Amino acid sequence: MSDYFADTSASLVSVAKSFHARGWLLGTSGNLSVVVQLDPLRLAMSPSGIDKGELTADQLLSIDEDARVVSEHNAKPSDESLLHIRIVRERGAGAVLHTHSVWNTIISDLYASEGGVTIQGYEMLKGLQGVRTHDHAEWLPIIENSQDMPALADVIGKTLNEHKAAHGFLILRHGLYSWGDTLAQAKRHIEILEFLLETLGRMLFIKQNRMQL
Amino acid sequence: MSDYFADTSASLVSVAKSFHARGWLLGTSGNLSVVVQLDPLRLAMSPSGIDKGELTADQLLSIDEDARVVSEHNAKPSDESLLHIRIVRERGAGAVLHTHSVWNTIISDLYASEGGVTIQGYEMLKGLQGVRTHDHAEWLPIIENSQDMPALADVIGKTLNEHKAAHGFLILRHGLYSWGDTLAQAKRHIEILEFLLETLGRMLFIKQNRMQL
Amino acid sequence: MSDYFADTSASLVSVAKSFHARGWLLGTSGNLSVVVQLDPLRLAMSPSGIDKGELTADQLLSIDEDARVVSEHNAKPSDESLLHIRIVRERGAGAVLHTHSVWNTIISDLYASEGGVTIQGYEMLKGLQGVRTHDHAEWLPIIENSQDMPALADVIGKTLNEHKAAHGFLILRHGLYSWGDTLAQAKRHIEILEFLLETLGRMLFIKQNRMQL
Amino acid sequence: MSDYFADTSASLVSVAKSFHARGWLLGTSGNLSVVVQLDPLRLAMSPSGIDKGELTADQLLSIDEDARVVSEHNAKPSDESLLHIRIVRERGAGAVLHTHSVWNTIISDLYASEGGVTIQGYEMLKGLQGVRTHDHAEWLPIIENSQDMPALADVIGKTLNEHKAAHGFLILRHGLYSWGDTLAQAKRHIEILEFLLETLGRMLFIKQNRMQL
Repeated sequence: MSDYFADTSASLVSVAKSFHARGWLLGTSGNLSVVVQLDPLRLAMSPSGIDKGELTADQLLSIDEDARVVSEHNAKPSDESLLHIRIVRERGAGAVLHTHSVWNTIISDLYASEGGVTIQGYEMLKGLQGVRTHDHAEWLPIIENSQDMPALADVIGKTLNEHKAAHGFLILRHGLYSWGDTLAQAKRHIEILEFLLETLGRMLFIKQNRMQL
Repeated sequence: MSDYFADTSASLVSVAKSFHARGWLLGTSGNLSVVVQLDPLRLAMSPSGIDKGELTADQLLSIDEDARVVSEHNAKPSDESLLHIRIVRERGAGAVLHTHSVWNTIISDLYASEGGVTIQGYEMLKGLQGVRTHDHAEWLPIIENSQDMPALADVIGKTLNEHKAAHGFLILRHGLYSWGDTLAQAKRHIEILEFLLETLGRMLFIKQNRMQL
Repeated sequence: MSDYFADTSASLVSVAKSFHARGWLLGTSGNLSVVVQLDPLRLAMSPSGIDKGELTADQLLSIDEDARVVSEHNAKPSDESLLHIRIVRERGAGAVLHTHSVWNTIISDLYASEGGVTIQGYEMLKGLQGVRTHDHAEWLPIIENSQDMPALADVIGKTLNEHKAAHGFLILRHGLYSWGDTLAQAKRHIEILEFLLETLGRMLFIKQNRMQL
Repeated sequence: MSDYFADTSASLVSVAKSFHARGWLLGTSGNLSVVVQLDPLRLAMSPSGIDKGELTADQLLSIDEDARVVSEHNAKPSDESLLHIRIVRERGAGAVLHTHSVWNTIISDLYASEGGVTIQGYEMLKGLQGVRTHDHAEWLPIIENSQDMPALADVIGKTLNEHKAAHGFLILRHGLYSWGDTLAQAKRHIEILEFLLETLGRMLFIKQNRMQL
């Protein structure tokens, strides 16, 4: 496992720096994980309170299915580790990524009363695993924010069960979660959803104005 | 050909990384090609499903006039290879680039009902090959999106014939295609058209509001 | 102190380059300081009129509690050194950072008549030192701009006393100040506040339009 | 002169790459010059049609007071070399920079009918050479675009004479010119004016909407 953990950690750090540069992980926000062993479950997980632009591979924690640190670190895992583990369990994901962008925050707010947002008709959707056409309608659920992590994990579990085709979800005024079979797929999903949320936000705005004319 | 292929591939990778950094090739979207031999036709082409920010020269495929891989790769060429080949045939292009940006997506949507968008009066237009003055009116056709690539290639062929002066075209809610005699010229055309589409999008928005006052 | 000054200086330069790249320190604007000694007080401070994208560690000045240069530099410390020192005194800060961003300039203008702006309900707020929940309401005071630095320092001192929970403040059409126990914490606070001010600016705009519908 | 030319060229390349990364010199647009000798006048000038993100020091041309190439280059100097030379003559500038940004294009269009735009009340203005307070009102003239370079140079000469305090000017739907005693000062001026034009553009937009409420 140790070589695999090292390789995976380097890739995770590279994704973290790339997303930080785009402004999606500012101020130590967001977190990233990769499954490095299935039985018993072990995740390489970004620690709490770390600048993602300065993250190093040796800062990554190995955590178990209860989000306890099993590596020899004094660092605290992210509070949201439980959410990562729930997503891994529900989706069989190999990697889970969580970003805080300006546009995902805005869309989560604007569509909160509708419980989610449908994204349809964009070629970009084809990059989501299993999607074959731009006609695909992606429903991105929006979940109420909470500081009670076990409760939030349960809401996420329930939401993922209700929306089995969803490739991600938003937490209200908080951020975006997506995942993939591999880290590369999870990264791809985040880039696609962030792109579409920005497009949606800017389009919505222009169309509102058009309607007034 | 092999040295030329290697040099060209390195340049293509550099363009891919630059455009990915600008957010124009997120989530493995977009694709890039350069003609490396005319007879029989050979293109160096980005493979399907690859992160353009992580692209390496040895991942580039050599494809023939029917978009079949002729190099010893197991990788699949982009679905849109047929579109690249059609553009090379119609325009005698030496390179074809295709980007997915937020602003080209938005403009393709806002002007879809008009079948295209005219861009006129900007100094930036002078950077398009053969354009001598900012008074130039560039008509950028907008094509309906489709997953039927041979059919889409035919629509593109027809569109390029109808609009012989066009330096690029948009596919609805999908992206921008442009090309050039060389890779450097194609890159220049993409940068110019992306700049103008963003300018147009922001201007349109402000002018709509102005009209209301 | 000399080793510590060197290490700290390298970190300060890294923060400066990162913020300059994001467009928060354009045109030699903004300034940065770290406390390198408490008694007597010594700050490592960015000099006046230096391009923050080209800043080098050996350009940093050591200044005393009256903003006099105590290192062997001919350079002039930033005019705003007195403001940094006042913040260090009032908050016991270990580092003070000041950015000029487009969005902090805009928000300082839009909310000036209210004397400040409340930011509430965003998960990002949890990254501010001592904040435990997204329900936290952060009051960011807005201070009138002035070229009289001792007078401005007094207004800042008074403002910090009145708003003891504030993690930063805005100066009208001028910029954002934030601080932290450490440079890393101050950087985190700036990134969080800049993110929230951009989000607020974009949201406000969309919501204004919504109200019209 | 040769050593000085080499040092200056390296700095000019660094500025070009930085501005290209910000999207201010896309598609071979814009140009940059530094005075390397006063009598007879010699400028190091970016050549025509070069990608500013790929510019190298040995591509820079040495041109004389009539914009003729005096170095052993086959390359063509930028069409706008005459404008640079006029600015050097009128202002005694040591460096002239010209950028094409989305926001300077937009502002040049929105304020064209007024012949210019006043920027007042921003702290950023203090970074313009000789400006002591944010209360300063900077008048940025807007000039009609033209492909007749000698005629355009004359209009610029006349404009600079009429507005002796101006630190830059806009050409309609074309771009921004600024300059400085040194390259560093010219870079500072461009960064400041680009920042202020973006701020103005976004503010104007929000305020228009506010007026409607």
